[in-house]
Amino acid sequence: MKFFAPPVERLIEQFERLPGIGHKTAQRLAFYLLSLPREDAEEFAAAITDAKNTVFTCKICQNLTDSEICPICSDPSRDKSIICVVTDPKDVVALERTREFSGLYHVLHGAISPLNHIGPDDLRIRELVLRASEDDVSEIIMATNPDTEGEATAMYISRLLKPFGVKITRLAYGVPVGGHLEFADEVTLGRALEGRREI
Amino acid sequence: MKFFAPPVERLIEQFERLPGIGHKTAQRLAFYLLSLPREDAEEFAAAITDAKNTVFTCKICQNLTDSEICPICSDPSRDKSIICVVTDPKDVVALERTREFSGLYHVLHGAISPLNHIGPDDLRIRELVLRASEDDVSEIIMATNPDTEGEATAMYISRLLKPFGVKITRLAYGVPVGGHLEFADEVTLGRALEGRREI
Repeated sequence: MKFFAPPVERLIEQFERLPGIGHKTAQRLAFYLLSLPREDAEEFAAAITDAKNTVFTCKICQNLTDSEICPICSDPSRDKSIICVVTDPKDVVALERTREFSGLYHVLHGAISPLNHIGPDDLRIRELVLRASEDDVSEIIMATNPDTEGEATAMYISRLLKPFGVKITRLAYGVPVGGHLEFADEVTLGRALEGRREI
Repeated sequence: MKFFAPPVERLIEQFERLPGIGHKTAQRLAFYLLSLPREDAEEFAAAITDAKNTVFTCKICQNLTDSEICPICSDPSRDKSIICVVTDPKDVVALERTREFSGLYHVLHGAISPLNHIGPDDLRIRELVLRASEDDVSEIIMATNPDTEGEATAMYISRLLKPFGVKITRLAYGVPVGGHLEFADEVTLGRALEGRREI
């Protein structure tokens, strides 16, 4: 026996498909949407179709955008000779918040992960190689995550790009600012020692 | 500066409005939806509008349904003389799973909660009083939650219904089946002692 009306069951099922949302949470979210005024629920549905229909990847950096070329790539004040390679559009946001980087980005949309059947061909690596070969690029910063998959991806790409004679760098490892030494793991602390700088 | 394309920002904002969903989770869910094939994202949006447009409250028990009278109220095999009063449509599902109850339900859609500005008029109490006065009801089981608000709601309703001379009962309190005595709080344990039965 189905306990809820079929449209409610369908809505719960849809929420359950989202990552990190279990059955109970899906129920809670579905009932919340049902309790909203009709316009608000419709606005929610419209935001989904709208985002899906109007958001593409930038032709240059592969970041999500609603124009052919994203605002960062089309900004004439940015330094086009430095490309920062990241895993995810969220990483672009994180780096932009630092206000320390004025170059361009390249979003891979994932990292190489054999366990999850994600190989180099599933990522936007070909587009990056094209940029490195065609454009006047002096430096490529590998800003993939400091985990196994991010490391493997950075290594793979740096080997691919070596023939182009471009300088390839990696984000510095070290203790996080504002953290406590006693809570830093030994690998991070080791890397922080190794990369120490004169003050 | 907006970091994501406007349609993406709007989708993230919509997810953020859901209960228990913070900014980071909203981002994750929005990006997941954007990564889905177009048909799947549209199916999600359709499930929302569909549920909102086709789900109403049952004219009799106020439970959510896609027909005028819900399947439980229109089932001729159910005992129409017993009404079980619950806070939420999810509670109907929980009680149906026990397969111990063959009467009808009445869904209040909330509990009296002065702190959250929810008074008796915000709940489906008037409809319950109408049912108690018009139909041939012999017993009303108050199955609101065993918390302060549920208790207050049960007390309020039982006083309202007293003039109709109908038997009003409350769910039994006690230790949960499969639980451990050492983890039961003293109030529950006290109630379990108080309600002890001969075996």
